Amino acid sequence: MPESNVENRLAALGLQLPAAPQPVGSYRAAVIANGLLFISGQLPLLNGALKYRGRVGIELTEAEGGEAAQLAALNVLAQIKAALNGFDRLVTLMRVEGYVSSAPGWMHQPRILDHASNLFATVLGDRGIHTRSAIATPQLPLNAPVELVVTAAVANS
Amino acid sequence: MPESNVENRLAALGLQLPAAPQPVGSYRAAVIANGLLFISGQLPLLNGALKYRGRVGIELTEAEGGEAAQLAALNVLAQIKAALNGFDRLVTLMRVEGYVSSAPGWMHQPRILDHASNLFATVLGDRGIHTRSAIATPQLPLNAPVELVVTAAVANS
Amino acid sequence: MPESNVENRLAALGLQLPAAPQPVGSYRAAVIANGLLFISGQLPLLNGALKYRGRVGIELTEAEGGEAAQLAALNVLAQIKAALNGFDRLVTLMRVEGYVSSAPGWMHQPRILDHASNLFATVLGDRGIHTRSAIATPQLPLNAPVELVVTAAVANS
Repeated sequence: MPESNVENRLAALGLQLPAAPQPVGSYRAAVIANGLLFISGQLPLLNGALKYRGRVGIELTEAEGGEAAQLAALNVLAQIKAALNGFDRLVTLMRVEGYVSSAPGWMHQPRILDHASNLFATVLGDRGIHTRSAIATPQLPLNAPVELVVTAAVANS
Repeated sequence: MPESNVENRLAALGLQLPAAPQPVGSYRAAVIANGLLFISGQLPLLNGALKYRGRVGIELTEAEGGEAAQLAALNVLAQIKAALNGFDRLVTLMRVEGYVSSAPGWMHQPRILDHASNLFATVLGDRGIHTRSAIATPQLPLNAPVELVVTAAVANS
Repeated sequence: MPESNVENRLAALGLQLPAAPQPVGSYRAAVIANGLLFISGQLPLLNGALKYRGRVGIELTEAEGGEAAQLAALNVLAQIKAALNGFDRLVTLMRVEGYVSSAPGWMHQPRILDHASNLFATVLGDRGIHTRSAIATPQLPLNAPVELVVTAAVANS
């Protein structure tokens, strides 16, 4: 799938890639070694600020949590594009870890993360399929509702 | 170690492999690339339903938490068998991440996870040795008490 | 960078490598396969006991949390040295996962983890650069304030 297809598919959904967010500490957004691409935890940042804040089930509804997960997934795609100069070298996503800041007793983290998973499948096709783990946390850095951590397989440059 | 040995060793413990659980969202149970097998987070599911629910130290005793960890580990083994068509291609487990839904102030997550680690070592031998991280969470998806995320090295098919 | 440089750079900071901590359960401190080194979760242990205990923002100040992160990072370095018989085979850190036991509503986990990230960059140079994820938890095993989980790329022996 050439790169343009990824962006075309996003456009067909009314979406576009944000600028890849800068790290919020002393680390790098992406590292490639041994055919693996590791991407730092991505938050629902837009233009350098969190677009969504708080816990799903308290400050945010489930629908807002899903939107936050989709935005974090867009940032993952932006990081992949930045790290690989496009999407041609992407072989496949391998793993998506999803951390969801959750109201006490709220147990539906997978529903939130499906908004990210579905976006990856829609715009990357077979290369967007991944394993996933869903974890509930009482809060996340900067008061983010969702954090996504993605590992992918990449072809040699 | 041929595949039959893994199942024989389970039988000697009075255990058998469950059917590999289906994902609880829009993702895949396992992905293989670059000699690595990633497995999605496994819960103590049996026949499609959680056998154990709640937090260790509140709704569940430590002993029940250990049983839940063992069941999640059996599901990990079932996923490995399904992904690799048996255990012959398994080179070694590399990493076990264990998330334990915990009562406030309860700090003994490693004791719970030892039930999973010991099962892996018993039935896989040297191939079952792994690194581990133990994390406490206030709740987990579906009200599961334990979630295990396993990464393994595999031989080419 | 020869091994001696790593230890010399630590000495220049007034630091030295602790003995690599033993696992606190039925697992191994490190596993190498496919050019990857996985290291088990490292706590701020010194001489077999936690030097820092509790949650950042309640029992510990932010400064103490940073010291705990630095000590956990020293233990990561000690595990790398033990696993690779020095640092010559280390190609690069790839991933640092940081779990911070946090007071309710305290959102500055990245500040704590920067103490680990900065140490890695200072003593390992370019090889210390990494991706990172920061996660808040309500507690951690043994009442540790910080847990670091590191994945690295290594050259063949």
